[in-house]
Amino acid sequence: MSEAQAPSARTRVVREAHRALYDRDTAYRILDEGFLCHVGFTVDGQPFVIPTLYGRKDDTLLIHGSAASRMLRHMKESLPVCVTVTLVDGFVLARSIFNQSMNYRSVVVLGKAALVDDPAQKLEALHLLSERVIPGRWADVRQPNERELKQTSVLRLPIEEFSSKVRTGPAIDDEEDYSFPTWAGVLPLAMETGEPIADERLLEGQKVPEYLRNYSRMHSAKMP
Amino acid sequence: MSEAQAPSARTRVVREAHRALYDRDTAYRILDEGFLCHVGFTVDGQPFVIPTLYGRKDDTLLIHGSAASRMLRHMKESLPVCVTVTLVDGFVLARSIFNQSMNYRSVVVLGKAALVDDPAQKLEALHLLSERVIPGRWADVRQPNERELKQTSVLRLPIEEFSSKVRTGPAIDDEEDYSFPTWAGVLPLAMETGEPIADERLLEGQKVPEYLRNYSRMHSAKMP
Repeated sequence: MSEAQAPSARTRVVREAHRALYDRDTAYRILDEGFLCHVGFTVDGQPFVIPTLYGRKDDTLLIHGSAASRMLRHMKESLPVCVTVTLVDGFVLARSIFNQSMNYRSVVVLGKAALVDDPAQKLEALHLLSERVIPGRWADVRQPNERELKQTSVLRLPIEEFSSKVRTGPAIDDEEDYSFPTWAGVLPLAMETGEPIADERLLEGQKVPEYLRNYSRMHSAKMP
Repeated sequence: MSEAQAPSARTRVVREAHRALYDRDTAYRILDEGFLCHVGFTVDGQPFVIPTLYGRKDDTLLIHGSAASRMLRHMKESLPVCVTVTLVDGFVLARSIFNQSMNYRSVVVLGKAALVDDPAQKLEALHLLSERVIPGRWADVRQPNERELKQTSVLRLPIEEFSSKVRTGPAIDDEEDYSFPTWAGVLPLAMETGEPIADERLLEGQKVPEYLRNYSRMHSAKMP
């Protein structure tokens, strides 16, 4: 793994390089399990990092522009961005503070984001993004009208320059620390869903749809 | 809420300004419930966004430098950063795609991050950071030695220029959409812990500590 080649110097993982992975399969599994990204961009030398929803379509990330107004105002044709997706899997409790760690999977995608301008393409992008976040929902809601579509923005970012970083498994302690008398192991962490909360103005007879009852990001990750 | 004053033009929330909050109480509750931040910085015009652990100490964020090697190499005295913390609370399923949303709480802190250089201060910062991520753990593990302390870096960021954004509650549909025949409501999402997984080389008699059994970010959020 540590011998893998980064696609560019900018995406080469600097620290703990043995945790770096540069293949598309790994990155796409992580990107497809996540739904929230943090988009970084720079305005007048000041970096900004904004959370928003995204979905992958083949070798492209589609990013919901809702939260990115500050970014969009500064876009001409395209804007250098960094999109980072992080899945947290657990706290790793080692025998020494120095070896404590976190199990996680993250992907960093660098590149130039561009607005999806064409209304038909934007509708298609929104559809895909929606299906990636809540598969099955799109067919169950009122579709966007022309005015709403204009008010919505979607960014397109090619997945070309990227790297993943993955830590899994138990604590790795210094050999002499294994005799240190403390509990060690992993506390798993995961994003879980609760019971759906029905709207107060729900129409009679509307049941919780199947795609919510069985909602799981693992399922989404299996999507093509 | 919408009348609140942003501390600076850069932290003024641009879109959905009615969801913006600029008070310390709100920001600190969010910051204390979270443990993972996304740090944004710029190198040669390219933004980078890196996930890492953090903890708040009074009006300062302490940020674990582990993942920030790229950033640290480019630091002279200090570096403009954006630190963003996002807590995801649920998907909001509206009757129209346009009004679908997410319940979340996020904080954006802008400023200049500086390395904690002094070894005694660094140890104190690490201690605090550790206690913010897993309260109670510090006393149970081998403390860092001089070499380990040198290899660890902690960044300090004053919480001066910041804003929070919070969405809670049900879907807000256009009045004419309430008759649209679909399920609507909220699918709660939360970061949950699983059963602790003991290390294979655990010493006999070591039980899962109380602070893991009862681990909850809500408890952390109640810390002073």
